[in-house]
This record gives sequence, C-alpha cells and structure tokens, in this order.
Amino acid sequence: MFENDALESKSARTRARISAAAIESFIERGYADTTMRLIAEKAEVSVGNAYYYFPSKNHLVQDLYVRVQQEHAATAHGLLAEHRALVDRLRIVFETGLAALVPYQRSAPGFLAAMIAPDSPINPLSAESAPARDMTVGLFREAVEGAQHRLPTDVADLLPEALFVSYLGLVLRWTYDGSPDQEKTSRMLDAGLRLLAIALPFVRMPGVHSTTRELLRLVTEVRS
Amino acid sequence: MFENDALESKSARTRARISAAAIESFIERGYADTTMRLIAEKAEVSVGNAYYYFPSKNHLVQDLYVRVQQEHAATAHGLLAEHRALVDRLRIVFETGLAALVPYQRSAPGFLAAMIAPDSPINPLSAESAPARDMTVGLFREAVEGAQHRLPTDVADLLPEALFVSYLGLVLRWTYDGSPDQEKTSRMLDAGLRLLAIALPFVRMPGVHSTTRELLRLVTEVRS
Repeated sequence: MFENDALESKSARTRARISAAAIESFIERGYADTTMRLIAEKAEVSVGNAYYYFPSKNHLVQDLYVRVQQEHAATAHGLLAEHRALVDRLRIVFETGLAALVPYQRSAPGFLAAMIAPDSPINPLSAESAPARDMTVGLFREAVEGAQHRLPTDVADLLPEALFVSYLGLVLRWTYDGSPDQEKTSRMLDAGLRLLAIALPFVRMPGVHSTTRELLRLVTEVRS
Repeated sequence: MFENDALESKSARTRARISAAAIESFIERGYADTTMRLIAEKAEVSVGNAYYYFPSKNHLVQDLYVRVQQEHAATAHGLLAEHRALVDRLRIVFETGLAALVPYQRSAPGFLAAMIAPDSPINPLSAESAPARDMTVGLFREAVEGAQHRLPTDVADLLPEALFVSYLGLVLRWTYDGSPDQEKTSRMLDAGLRLLAIALPFVRMPGVHSTTRELLRLVTEVRS
C-alpha cells in the first residue's frame, strides 16, 4: 500500500513537472516552437517518459486549457457568491476568464493559428477540448441559474452554451488587442453588457422571445 | 502605339491567366498546397514570369480577395437598387457576400488558418488587404447611406466599418458550417437581422444611443 502511494505520488510529481515545463515553454516560445523534446529537457525527464504521460504536444495544450479553466472557476466562484443580478454575474465570468488568460496574451496569436481550423484537436469546439469547455459552459450555467432574472426558461437553458461561443468571440478580439492591458477588449465587453442589460427585459415579448430562442439555438449549433 | 497596346494586352492576358490558375488551384488544393511553381505550370508560364506579375502567393490571395469583392459588389448593386429599408439592404450585402464565397467553402478552413494571425499579410484586417476590405466597407456604406432609417448620424457613420467586422464573424461561422448549403449560417443571419430590425428604433433613446456608439467605435477599433 505505502509503496503504491509513493509510486503514485512520484508519478503525479513527474506529470506535474512535465505539465509545468510545457506551460513555461508555451509562454516563452509559443505553440509552434514548443516541442516534446524541449519540454522533456526542461522537465528533466527522458523524451519517452514525457510521451508516456502526454501522448502529444496537443495533450499538453488540453492540460493547459483545463488548468486555465480551473483558475478561471476558482476566481469566478468567490465573486459569484456576492452578486445576484444576471448581467453582473455574466460580467464576472467574462472578466475572470480574460484575467486567467493574461500570461498567454503574447503567445495567443500562435495558438490561435493552430486552433482555428475546425478539425484541429485543440480547437475549443472539438471533442478533445470537451473537458475544458464543459468547465467554462458550467461556469456560465452557474452564473445564469444562480441569478435573479425573468428570462423565459427555454432562453435561460440555451444561454450558457451561447455565452460560451460569445466568450470565444471575445477571446478572439482579445488576441488582436494591442492596447495596454487589453483595455479595448474590457471596454467592448463593458459596452456589450450594458446593452444586454437594456435588452434583457424585452426578451419576454412574444416576437422577441421566439427569435432570440432561434438565434441562441443556432449559435450553440456552431459546435455541430 | 499599336505595338504598345498589343504588348499591354498580352501582358494583361498573361496576368489574367496566372490569376485564374491560382484561383483554380486554391479551390482544388487549398491554400497550403498551392505553390507559385504549380500556379506557373497551370498557367503555362515560367516560374520567373509568374513572380514578375505576383511577387508572392499572398499577392495572389489579395488578387482573389479583390475578385471575390468585385463579384460581391456587382451582385449586391443590382439588388440594392430595389430596396430602401435598412435591414433589407444589409441582408442583401451579407447574403450576396456569402454567395460570392460559395466556391471557396471547402478550402475555407485552410485559408482561415493562414489568415487568422493578426500579423498575417492575408488577414482581412491587414494593411495589405485594404483594397478588398475597402470595397466591402464601401458596400455596407452604400447600403446604410441609401437606406430609409432614423439612426443618429454618428451611429450611421460608424455602422459600415462595424458591419464589416460582423461580416467577418459571419464568414468565420460559415467556415465552420457543415450543414447543406450552409443553411445554418443563413438562418443565423436571418434571426440576427430580425432582432436588429426590432432593436434599431431604440438606438435613438439617449442611454442606448451613447452605449451603441461606444460599442460600434470599439468594434471598428479591432483593426488598430
């Protein structure tokens, strides 16, 4: 028993070291110039050992996605507990999401080029990205379900997946943002949320309701 | 004089042949697998001659962008003459834009990966892409300026550039659209335009007006 625990813990430590080395390299060198060989060197393990834990560089990208989303969720949770208005809660999820990405701003364009093809395994909409994506969609669901709002149930149900797609749009704009601290993206988010707050009460009107539901459903279908 | 005309016309014909060969190859093989050598072979000119007319493959992509926009403008103009309502006119520009892209749907993901980096010379927001972009922005300007609407002047002025950015978003969604005839993209556009028609009269309300102006301004700044 004890011996197994020790082995598992050694294995977990090796895995964590490889993961940390990959993240460091992704930040320093970017996606394209990071190789399994460089990661193994940095982590002081053999290349074979690195491949044992992560079958490809893209598995390390997925590992990175999950770590970023863990941080995103941890920061968001604390703040969500303090707010009840829907738009305030959405603002928290969007803003903490961008904050968790800050270390990757400089390397974001390279990642974007590698992930944008619809069949890329590191595309945020791919089957491979489900673990990280489910965490983000879950955060938006938590934001919607814990909020005081008077949205029709069908619209509220579609909202988390549609908000995830709009979050990807925001991150795309952020990748292009050369302004200090990406303040243009922050201001765009702020203006968008203010208009959303004005628009939300209208969603209950019959014509607006059905068209909004249809638009949201089509937005969520981007993934299929 | 006559001899010069003959030379110029021969030169124009060679250029057109290289351009047509490139488009054919972009459609058949996609962006990455198209080379200047292949284009020259297809056009039956020497590689050196091809480079004389187009200094790089990306110059041929810009040539393609301009041709697509010429077709887009030609189709849109005829239809714009028949409609006065703003949303109808915007629908025409969006729909004829997607129609002009149909031959490129299969090769779109490869182009997307090559153009998405903010510093790519074939990025639609790049300085190099100004000729094609100006044509599309011009079409949206024509759609707005020739329309019956009661939008505040500052909003109407910002609209064409902001519509161009939203058009890029629509084309991004279209690139991912595996549904027959990309009907999901068409339905998303339709639902979005119906909501826009409902929202437009509210833009004149003081709070909505200033926030809309700010959001549009920030959207147009994606390019800077």
